Amino acid sequence: VDPPSGGQRRCQSKGWGRIVSAEQDGQDRRITPVILSGGAGTRLWPRSRTSKPKQMLPLTGSETMLQMTMRRVADAALFRAPMLVVSEQHAAIVDAQLSEAGLAADLLILEPSGRNTAPAIALAAMAANADDLLLVMPSDHRITDPDSFTAAVERASAIASEGWLVTFGIRPDRPETGYGYIKRGEALMTGVFRAEQFIEKPDAATAQAYIDQGDYEWNGGIFLFKAGAFLAALERHAPAIHAAVREAADGATRDQRRVRPDGKAFANAPAISIDHAVMELADRIAVVPVDMGWSDAGSWDAIYEIGEKDSEGNVLGSDVLALDSRNCLLQSSGPLLVTVGVEDLVVIATDDAILVLPRGQTQRVRAAVDALRERSDPTLN
Amino acid sequence: VDPPSGGQRRCQSKGWGRIVSAEQDGQDRRITPVILSGGAGTRLWPRSRTSKPKQMLPLTGSETMLQMTMRRVADAALFRAPMLVVSEQHAAIVDAQLSEAGLAADLLILEPSGRNTAPAIALAAMAANADDLLLVMPSDHRITDPDSFTAAVERASAIASEGWLVTFGIRPDRPETGYGYIKRGEALMTGVFRAEQFIEKPDAATAQAYIDQGDYEWNGGIFLFKAGAFLAALERHAPAIHAAVREAADGATRDQRRVRPDGKAFANAPAISIDHAVMELADRIAVVPVDMGWSDAGSWDAIYEIGEKDSEGNVLGSDVLALDSRNCLLQSSGPLLVTVGVEDLVVIATDDAILVLPRGQTQRVRAAVDALRERSDPTLN
Repeated sequence: VDPPSGGQRRCQSKGWGRIVSAEQDGQDRRITPVILSGGAGTRLWPRSRTSKPKQMLPLTGSETMLQMTMRRVADAALFRAPMLVVSEQHAAIVDAQLSEAGLAADLLILEPSGRNTAPAIALAAMAANADDLLLVMPSDHRITDPDSFTAAVERASAIASEGWLVTFGIRPDRPETGYGYIKRGEALMTGVFRAEQFIEKPDAATAQAYIDQGDYEWNGGIFLFKAGAFLAALERHAPAIHAAVREAADGATRDQRRVRPDGKAFANAPAISIDHAVMELADRIAVVPVDMGWSDAGSWDAIYEIGEKDSEGNVLGSDVLALDSRNCLLQSSGPLLVTVGVEDLVVIATDDAILVLPRGQTQRVRAAVDALRERSDPTLN
Repeated sequence: VDPPSGGQRRCQSKGWGRIVSAEQDGQDRRITPVILSGGAGTRLWPRSRTSKPKQMLPLTGSETMLQMTMRRVADAALFRAPMLVVSEQHAAIVDAQLSEAGLAADLLILEPSGRNTAPAIALAAMAANADDLLLVMPSDHRITDPDSFTAAVERASAIASEGWLVTFGIRPDRPETGYGYIKRGEALMTGVFRAEQFIEKPDAATAQAYIDQGDYEWNGGIFLFKAGAFLAALERHAPAIHAAVREAADGATRDQRRVRPDGKAFANAPAISIDHAVMELADRIAVVPVDMGWSDAGSWDAIYEIGEKDSEGNVLGSDVLALDSRNCLLQSSGPLLVTVGVEDLVVIATDDAILVLPRGQTQRVRAAVDALRERSDPTLN
């Protein structure tokens, strides 16, 4: 669906307020996707770079994670054109990827700095009508069953319309310690539960206990709520964020679809996730469990898990020759990669960097990135 | 020492015969080094390439293996300028490496094809006087104690002058299964023994028994003998090689220092090593044990063994970041190489290829090279 481009919008070059167009105001009951694309994705170095982070890479298919995320909400009967919250430096590449794929955003909100998810979502919420239902999504997750996703969103929309803040719970299939968990409470509607507790990444034993108990879901970082309901909860539980983002929005400038909040004001917003700032504290939080082939694709281990295995259990990119090698993730977009007799190894190569580490330990890429950052290594850029 | 360049040599543009200059004939008692540089060195892929094999790489220092081999015989009081046997395609790069290092060869014998060591050495022997002492050496071994080497050569020259074929035995410091062994017999002179038996690469138990017995040396592939004594033994034990090389030498053409044997004749020479063709069969074979910090530098494992270890047991090239990694050989002349949490791993990267395999199994590079050869992969060239 093409975004509205009424005269009112183009003239409004300073200030934020209500920038939705007159014709959709209060009449359009469709959901507004809000796609968060501010992440740096250093966990997938060396493929993910500051200049081209994870969501802008074709990690799990021929399209980039961002393009695939946009496709999931492309049904114009259900969704308006999305708002994207991206960092200023990626505006051009985001535009290029959307137009390449024939996709269109309604707004590109250019984050002046990375302040975590609560301020980013607040920017989008302040650009919407209070009654608009916002479907907030990371731009870099993989979902293999988009129909289940859409069904869950529809299931969630009734209670969200009543002012609840809804989070989607991913059915866990293993005692993963890398994700947050949500404990289900009482059933509110069919397939909709009160969210009783948000739990940060647990240790292995705790994670196993959650799996055994059966009433815990992974926190997938996908939310549905009215813009006004979210902002009210934010104002109550994280007033400093609300105030700073309000000021940033009031001082915003606009150039067609691109909106630039005031950078100085935005920098004052505490960098806190939506979970910590709102979801763990507010009343009327619901969780809608959904089984949709979800992965955060957030580490090389995750990329291995969701990748297609050969008969030896390897996930191989092109330009790889794996001899007598087993259960490896091997990718190269640079030199030819040849392995002989290795097991459970991850090797990711690009034109200018090669990462080698054991499978199951790929969170340790962080140590590499930290060391490279210390020496301002160009392979991060 | 500058090679002689008498008028007789320049005029002789066809045929081989006796191409030594008149003035050195029979008067110069110095040793003539014969450096064999025909190897392809695929065991060190991806650094070693068809176009630039192992001996032309600076694997163990700032100079190439060939340059360091030439330096070992640069003492003009002991050695004449060497003859080099190289393959035609490497003539230009060999010239460049010699002139870069201020080194000079007397002759560059361009092998029309690779026929193993016996024919290559025969080419050199036929270019020398029958009484000339030839010191035959691979161009790609590492020797850290050149004085011990020179002393061993001097120790060997007396018996070599009597017509014995001398091989140098490397004192083994481990039960290596990748080398051939020589069993020492009776002492012939101080530090000179009859070579009682040549043994091909043994299995681990046999190698350990050799170490325990103490009278076995590694076969280092370095020889000293009179050209005539070698050719007589070759004619007796491998007449087909002798005849083919004789014909190739007679049909040779010469362009200043470069000599081109007849390719068709040379191709008829059976491709057999000097060990199989002569040393294992002939009488009057002596072995001179020497301890000179020798390594054949013939595998990535060998390169690891002789490399300088850091506190974690790693041998690291430049452009490598090894985090929490132990006992690894990590080199890159291409992309930045980063490892995290790996052990006993070999990673060799260049601009166009990356090899990853476990330490202790680097002979398996052969499988990789075979697979690449099958698809005519450009990274072999």
